[in-house]
Amino acid sequence: MNLNTLPSRTVAQRMEYFRSRLPSMRLDAYWVVDPADVRYLSGFTGEESTLLVTRDWSGLITDSRFEEQAGAEALVDEIVLRQKGMAATVGLLSRRMGLRRIAFTSRHLAYADWQALSSELVQARLVPCGEGLPERMRARKSREEAKAIALAVRLAERAFLRFVQQVQPGRTERWLAGRLEWEMVVAGAERAAFDTICAVGERASLPHAVCTERQVGPDGVVLVDWGARVGGYHSDLTRIVGTGTMPRRVRELAQVVLEAQEAALEKLAPGVSCGEVDRAARTVVARAGYGPNFGHSVGHGVGLTVHEAPRLAAGEVDVLLPGMVVTVEPGIYVPGEGGVRIEDVVVVTDGGCEVLSSLEREPGCRMDGPRGAGDGSGSCSGTG
Amino acid sequence: MNLNTLPSRTVAQRMEYFRSRLPSMRLDAYWVVDPADVRYLSGFTGEESTLLVTRDWSGLITDSRFEEQAGAEALVDEIVLRQKGMAATVGLLSRRMGLRRIAFTSRHLAYADWQALSSELVQARLVPCGEGLPERMRARKSREEAKAIALAVRLAERAFLRFVQQVQPGRTERWLAGRLEWEMVVAGAERAAFDTICAVGERASLPHAVCTERQVGPDGVVLVDWGARVGGYHSDLTRIVGTGTMPRRVRELAQVVLEAQEAALEKLAPGVSCGEVDRAARTVVARAGYGPNFGHSVGHGVGLTVHEAPRLAAGEVDVLLPGMVVTVEPGIYVPGEGGVRIEDVVVVTDGGCEVLSSLEREPGCRMDGPRGAGDGSGSCSGTG
Repeated sequence: MNLNTLPSRTVAQRMEYFRSRLPSMRLDAYWVVDPADVRYLSGFTGEESTLLVTRDWSGLITDSRFEEQAGAEALVDEIVLRQKGMAATVGLLSRRMGLRRIAFTSRHLAYADWQALSSELVQARLVPCGEGLPERMRARKSREEAKAIALAVRLAERAFLRFVQQVQPGRTERWLAGRLEWEMVVAGAERAAFDTICAVGERASLPHAVCTERQVGPDGVVLVDWGARVGGYHSDLTRIVGTGTMPRRVRELAQVVLEAQEAALEKLAPGVSCGEVDRAARTVVARAGYGPNFGHSVGHGVGLTVHEAPRLAAGEVDVLLPGMVVTVEPGIYVPGEGGVRIEDVVVVTDGGCEVLSSLEREPGCRMDGPRGAGDGSGSCSGTG
Repeated sequence: MNLNTLPSRTVAQRMEYFRSRLPSMRLDAYWVVDPADVRYLSGFTGEESTLLVTRDWSGLITDSRFEEQAGAEALVDEIVLRQKGMAATVGLLSRRMGLRRIAFTSRHLAYADWQALSSELVQARLVPCGEGLPERMRARKSREEAKAIALAVRLAERAFLRFVQQVQPGRTERWLAGRLEWEMVVAGAERAAFDTICAVGERASLPHAVCTERQVGPDGVVLVDWGARVGGYHSDLTRIVGTGTMPRRVRELAQVVLEAQEAALEKLAPGVSCGEVDRAARTVVARAGYGPNFGHSVGHGVGLTVHEAPRLAAGEVDVLLPGMVVTVEPGIYVPGEGGVRIEDVVVVTDGGCEVLSSLEREPGCRMDGPRGAGDGSGSCSGTG
């Protein structure tokens, strides 16, 4: 199956649904500028192109560099090759079609581009949307999309199992991250989903650690946060690996984190709010006395981008729906000492959820043979 | 020398100069949101943080995750740990200091963030700047910055010389790109400067080719566009390599491209406009009959980002100054057939320019031993 382009039927249905929503929002058109949104609604995978979608017309606005690719991929009524700037072209089309209310996702459009389009329009009004309709649609994945993400998880796991053999004293964070990214390409990924995090020792207390020349020592511990991209879809996983005996302290923290993750997974089902899932994990961490050491939300949607809707965060009232694919990644961070985060990818099913990842979750996963899996979800020696 | 943080003297001088420019622009403050601008003006290398700079005060607005890092790196008057959103915090500071005119770079601020800050301000006016002052300042590199870029060039070249041994029939574009990125990490780079382009055969006619599973064949040709990042600074190079005999047609196109590059390099000197450099290269390509096949500009600045000021483009009136570091990368693209681009990095000196890259430029560079260098700038067997 070629994952680069999803079945065209699905893309056409997305566009149809998207368009059908415009009247109830009192919109004549939506200017779609985010590359992931453009790809989702039209199938076009190129760059520097936008979509203008009206109630009865859709156009991909691109330039000559992408003409051939657009013709092969984009399911739109018209491919518009722009001669001038992007905003000037959208302005021209808007005037020609007499559009009055044109929406855009306000997080995705630079002020300069808003300004450029505004100056082109006379009678039309630009309507900023805080939460974009395309991204809301993307939150719920089709069966094909869930399959693509599952494949991205499998390739990331396969690469990880080769990578852990390389986690040896003397290796630097940068070397390790680069090695894992290379193993993902060898495993068949398009490339790494994002800049891989390898945080050694107490550096794991930084949830946003950037790799350095720091070396892992004997009996050293490395937090690894990585993912693969395939067919445009991403995976996002986190594990703790060591070079020798795993320190008891790390095992203790991991026990709490794993319980928190289990509590979130038990909660995860259609109809449950995102905030409830976050609370389930947070309660376990707080009860163990580490409430202040778990500063981030418990998870996020993953798909055509690494971070997308829904947000599994405190107080989030959005409700989970079948087909949503999210990470579940509680963590405990002790400044100056270290940190433990365990992250898996799950898809919401009709009755609950299914974990797409199958790597051993306990810290210390090494390739010295199969181990008993802490939670029965898999073992070091297989990719499930 | 630790390139992660430039000498603090330099950063302090930058901030001082930046601040001194505010009165003549009738500005009370500048809100700096681009990470490269933040790093340039303050030395802070973390994420999700912005700078507010007034005529007599500078503050880095960050959150608790980056508190320790900000304390160690940021040369500012105050580190402000935000409790609320970024815009709310900037709004609070602006009201407290009675700021009236606050500038921002309009390409770098999302409309949503502009909207959020606007709603916080009562008496102040937000002034969009099309061309940002920080980016204009960044165009002219200090000696230390030029050294950092030269190192990024050297590491990219060292990796390339190991990589070319791997360019063999049957390798896919993705495999090759992943391999070169891995070789850069082994050579000592932080990571790849950008997604490496490896375009096989006729796919090289796409200036923005994205790697696929396309395999290189016997007597195959691959266009490779790659760079390394080290100490936050980037390099950006392009070469043509082959698996056997280089097709005569590729050699012919390369001859024109190399002449065009030479013409641009001869022109490159302080006081010359960017448009003149572009024209020098374009004239050579057009005279050979390939004018319509050279669609992009001849080069761009490179530094803390891969693409920055100045733009060496047709009609660009900006004048070159000593210390500017730019790529020179003419190309000829024949759809359905292939393409040749040769790209090097140069620094503008007091009397002309110095090429920082030293790899053999002729297509066909392989590791089967030293070759005569086409232009005397280096050979396959050394990194210069």
